[in-house]
Amino acid sequence: MARLALSQEDKQVRDWFKKTTEALGCKVTVDAMGNMFAVRPGRRGDVPPTFVGSHLDTQPTGGRYDGILGVCAGIEMLKVLEEKGIETEGGVGVVNWTNEEGARFPKSMVSSGVWAECIPLATAHSLLEVPTVASLPSAASSPDSMKSALEKINYLGTVPCSYTAMPMAAHFELHIEQGPHLINAGQRVGVVTAVQASRWYRINVTGRDCHTGSTSFEHRADALYASAKMMIRAREIAQKLGCLASVGIVDVKPGSVNTVPGFVSFSLDIRGPESENVNVLDKELRKEFELIAAEEGKNIGKPCRVEWQLDVDSPAITFHPDCIECVTEATMAVVSDSPNPESMYRTIRSGAGHDSVYTSKRVPTSMVFVPCKDGVSHHPEEFSTPEECVDGASVILQAVVRYDRKRFSK
Amino acid sequence: MARLALSQEDKQVRDWFKKTTEALGCKVTVDAMGNMFAVRPGRRGDVPPTFVGSHLDTQPTGGRYDGILGVCAGIEMLKVLEEKGIETEGGVGVVNWTNEEGARFPKSMVSSGVWAECIPLATAHSLLEVPTVASLPSAASSPDSMKSALEKINYLGTVPCSYTAMPMAAHFELHIEQGPHLINAGQRVGVVTAVQASRWYRINVTGRDCHTGSTSFEHRADALYASAKMMIRAREIAQKLGCLASVGIVDVKPGSVNTVPGFVSFSLDIRGPESENVNVLDKELRKEFELIAAEEGKNIGKPCRVEWQLDVDSPAITFHPDCIECVTEATMAVVSDSPNPESMYRTIRSGAGHDSVYTSKRVPTSMVFVPCKDGVSHHPEEFSTPEECVDGASVILQAVVRYDRKRFSK
Repeated sequence: MARLALSQEDKQVRDWFKKTTEALGCKVTVDAMGNMFAVRPGRRGDVPPTFVGSHLDTQPTGGRYDGILGVCAGIEMLKVLEEKGIETEGGVGVVNWTNEEGARFPKSMVSSGVWAECIPLATAHSLLEVPTVASLPSAASSPDSMKSALEKINYLGTVPCSYTAMPMAAHFELHIEQGPHLINAGQRVGVVTAVQASRWYRINVTGRDCHTGSTSFEHRADALYASAKMMIRAREIAQKLGCLASVGIVDVKPGSVNTVPGFVSFSLDIRGPESENVNVLDKELRKEFELIAAEEGKNIGKPCRVEWQLDVDSPAITFHPDCIECVTEATMAVVSDSPNPESMYRTIRSGAGHDSVYTSKRVPTSMVFVPCKDGVSHHPEEFSTPEECVDGASVILQAVVRYDRKRFSK
Repeated sequence: MARLALSQEDKQVRDWFKKTTEALGCKVTVDAMGNMFAVRPGRRGDVPPTFVGSHLDTQPTGGRYDGILGVCAGIEMLKVLEEKGIETEGGVGVVNWTNEEGARFPKSMVSSGVWAECIPLATAHSLLEVPTVASLPSAASSPDSMKSALEKINYLGTVPCSYTAMPMAAHFELHIEQGPHLINAGQRVGVVTAVQASRWYRINVTGRDCHTGSTSFEHRADALYASAKMMIRAREIAQKLGCLASVGIVDVKPGSVNTVPGFVSFSLDIRGPESENVNVLDKELRKEFELIAAEEGKNIGKPCRVEWQLDVDSPAITFHPDCIECVTEATMAVVSDSPNPESMYRTIRSGAGHDSVYTSKRVPTSMVFVPCKDGVSHHPEEFSTPEECVDGASVILQAVVRYDRKRFSK
């Protein structure tokens, strides 16, 4: 699946989302980041709706569940409410957040970030598409800005992108798990209580170009050799600290077989269970990268230089107890058909970021995970059975209805 | 300097080369690879000319001497012969070889290779430009073939590219040194007697894409991590064997900050003084790369796989004794104004490949090196003083005249 944010494929699924939810009696609002809010009215029009949300964009070589499952579960919720003629006290809605993956425009969860007023609208609008996303031929020669891409597919809305202009009572999100935890334990539902901390960096290493055939190793300041060492050390240190460190993008200049690269730029994604773990990892890596850079090229008096640019800083998040309670109760009801219901679910911490991270900064939020094969996501092999998807959708539906009752019974 | 082969900049310098050499009384022939042969007739029309040759293309971030110096020295030779009214017995010529660098079309010395009938014309014509050469906007979305690029700048000649269609008596080439040997020793001229062996590979490493935030290191088959380890090991082993190993191009897929790369393709350039050294290095690297690939991903039963593709195989070359003799005699004449002439030159082995490698397979060939600052090439800092350039041009002129006399006095 390759449905990059704001591509023609994304436009198609957006048009489908609008048509489908309108046919279910919803009013659809599009904001200045292209976020789509489909709202089914409740008895009371003076209170914000409770939302189910996720995203419809994918990685360049993504799967069929990451993101889409959460939006489809929201639509399924709307269908069930219609079919059963259920009225809620407050409205209920489904939201499709734009560019959650950060694959085409390199800031993940950027549009829920703008909605939460954590990222300025201008910053988001001026993000340029990543040149390595080869499926978009424009990317290399004249990268599109996010604003221009929104305009091109006619999804630059006039409503401000903000939690004050589009308020929510709460935000629930269903997602496939992204490590083989539930699947290996034979469990049906994960009640997500927290999200680990993460930071995204761009690391620039500068050395000196030289000829591969006639420059001895002692006379080189090879930016790629230094970068390769940094990649190896990053994993070693992250492992030691119980964290993760990953490199996903590498640009090598000048990019010729017989020229030793004088410049390398690579992405670095570091994560840890708590913000403090990531702080410690960050400090150790900076020290180690400096040492590696200083070593390469010292013989010619031109040691490599390393620069860090912080692109995303996402501290650890704890979800809202009211939402967690609703999800837990809904889960217990759903798994009650198992012989051992108590062993069929667990609380879990999310390794990945989600739009729920940003919504949780403004409104009560929590998430639901369902098992997926081998815990693989961001890959075509991503797979959850129909039964696993039904479990998740049932939990989301019931959690929203419970939350609706709870908020007006207080 | 960025004058990539068959770019608009290359067309400009080619037009200049044609106009300039024609004004000096030469006939210019363009062959099917765009090689340009400017010939000044000698007394006899029934024998092949003696050529001075090099190339006018550069690396993406190249310097002002690599290649161009050799062609300009040839033109200077033509000027001096004209000015002094010197007639040669056989003709003398200057050749500009196409795409020597292999920077835009990834096969270096490809056009002298076709001329020597070591590379099939069809293979060369169908070479596609490298997408990472960012200065050509077409490269990423719809890469040009070499034949199409030749047509576009009107340099697809009708004369067959072959040593039989365009015969030479001998080939001499002046080049800047590409390691700090002459410059550090305070010497003026290098008499090049041999060229080290080299091989270019494309290494493809396949693992599995997965999410950076939720996949533990044990559950990864990270193609980039494995590749980084290979890059480090390649240098260690090459160093141990007295050889060189270098990586200049890296493509990482899918290329997203939060996806662990499932595929990496990188160039590997290995060199050694003799062909046998390169054989040994090749064997050791294959063994080591297999081990590294097998280790990464073994926990999930999906170890990385590594594939080798040989793009260029250039065995070690020894130049022709007649040419070496002419260059040595010319050098002794040129440096005779030094207080200690004998210490002003040395014999030297070329670390880099040159068009002279291919010409040497068909006709007597040798090369001349002059010092350059820090031995740096393939970089804007590349620099030789005017005096150093004059030394080289004087040696080339005298070597050609001596060779012309020698061949007819036998």
